[in-house]
Amino acid sequence: MYKLVLESRYDGTDFVGFQIQDNGRSVQGVLEEALREIYKTDIDLTGCSRTDSGVHAACHVSSADVPFFIPSEKVPLALNAVLPPDVAVKSAWYAKEDFNARFMSLGKRYIYRIYSSPVRDPLIARYSFHTPYAPDISLMKEAASYMTGTLDYASFCAAGGSQNTTVRTVTEVNVTEDGKIPGLILIEVKGESFLYNMVRIMAGTLFYAGIGKISPEEVKMLFEMPDRKKAGKTLPACGLTLEEVYYDKERWMVQL
Amino acid sequence: MYKLVLESRYDGTDFVGFQIQDNGRSVQGVLEEALREIYKTDIDLTGCSRTDSGVHAACHVSSADVPFFIPSEKVPLALNAVLPPDVAVKSAWYAKEDFNARFMSLGKRYIYRIYSSPVRDPLIARYSFHTPYAPDISLMKEAASYMTGTLDYASFCAAGGSQNTTVRTVTEVNVTEDGKIPGLILIEVKGESFLYNMVRIMAGTLFYAGIGKISPEEVKMLFEMPDRKKAGKTLPACGLTLEEVYYDKERWMVQL
Repeated sequence: MYKLVLESRYDGTDFVGFQIQDNGRSVQGVLEEALREIYKTDIDLTGCSRTDSGVHAACHVSSADVPFFIPSEKVPLALNAVLPPDVAVKSAWYAKEDFNARFMSLGKRYIYRIYSSPVRDPLIARYSFHTPYAPDISLMKEAASYMTGTLDYASFCAAGGSQNTTVRTVTEVNVTEDGKIPGLILIEVKGESFLYNMVRIMAGTLFYAGIGKISPEEVKMLFEMPDRKKAGKTLPACGLTLEEVYYDKERWMVQL
Repeated sequence: MYKLVLESRYDGTDFVGFQIQDNGRSVQGVLEEALREIYKTDIDLTGCSRTDSGVHAACHVSSADVPFFIPSEKVPLALNAVLPPDVAVKSAWYAKEDFNARFMSLGKRYIYRIYSSPVRDPLIARYSFHTPYAPDISLMKEAASYMTGTLDYASFCAAGGSQNTTVRTVTEVNVTEDGKIPGLILIEVKGESFLYNMVRIMAGTLFYAGIGKISPEEVKMLFEMPDRKKAGKTLPACGLTLEEVYYDKERWMVQL
């Protein structure tokens, strides 16, 4: 057996999320089907995270035990030939046998895209949340400055999570303008791990700060006296993209 | 009657093109339906160009006679509320009564997007042509330098056009790299008017120049001794976006 690691990209629009579920088409299901075609046997993938229905990935990592060796540079080509247009494997590598894409992840980077314009734009609608409001970027930046650290993110957690603690470490929250597309605002969030819907609620809170519905000081208070009801709403899944997943590759990668 | 001008954006993926046709959903059909809902009467739109099935528009212009006045800044909001997600009206203005979006156009700007990467990317696949080849940008630029002027573009015209002459004026052909997305190559083409499939065949020819299938000098020859068979293939519609349409607004626009 070989421990294969896949870095994949997908357009989440027509998926129920990464993880296999009864109620529809999942990225995991589609990837496992492609692996079955190549390896001629059932393969169980472990994903770095579930991702919600509609959330996109520029890089999602999953791992599996495969029965025989294929050179890592050939794996994407073999899989992409059988995968549907909305999923592709970007690259592959081999890991030590006790590697697990979920538990060995050191952190993740997400981008939430807000498109602020009086009119919507069909050419970016799949990958952004459209709002006719014009958020004040400096207020968003100020609110974002309170969101990093090892803090209690209970205010930014949807009901339904099964975690023991709501304390998480977020290392970066950057609010920037795209530059190329006027009105497109990028919220970049980097952290070790995240609660259920956490990035979308953080984005919603920064959006509320930008339009004056909540002050930067009130955002600070959300960490001192956690209250989900006082944070912003959960912004739509389509605006969120998982951009990167971090691993200690020196420790885990093997050259075969 | 008022002469209304609409600047619209659309994701061409699920359309047979701009113009109404028997064989499927058209942008014109969808826009006319929205106009009917607002103005409560049948409205005939005239588009600046047909655009092929699958081609996108960041700005497509069309005009129509409408029976009553709505402030131009309210028109996009009224129409966007009833339009489907893949079409939106960006802005609207009023013109003198003999304005016609097709005949008064002074020129258009298109961008053709080529994504050069060993693996495809589902997040940009709708708006680009994927190739595993890595074209040489300097060869593409050199070939592009022969493509501007008032020239015979017969080598870049698909069968089925009904024009009297294949002479056209192209003012700019620029080949650049996107910068943000590695491997994304942009071919920008600006001209007065275009033959059937002309931009897609020009893009195909520049692509062939980039991968060494045709030399820049041979591209120059295509204008001296026109031969469709010696030009590059017609690249897929999904890579093409109509970016801008030019009018003499000082001459045609009216303030109501």
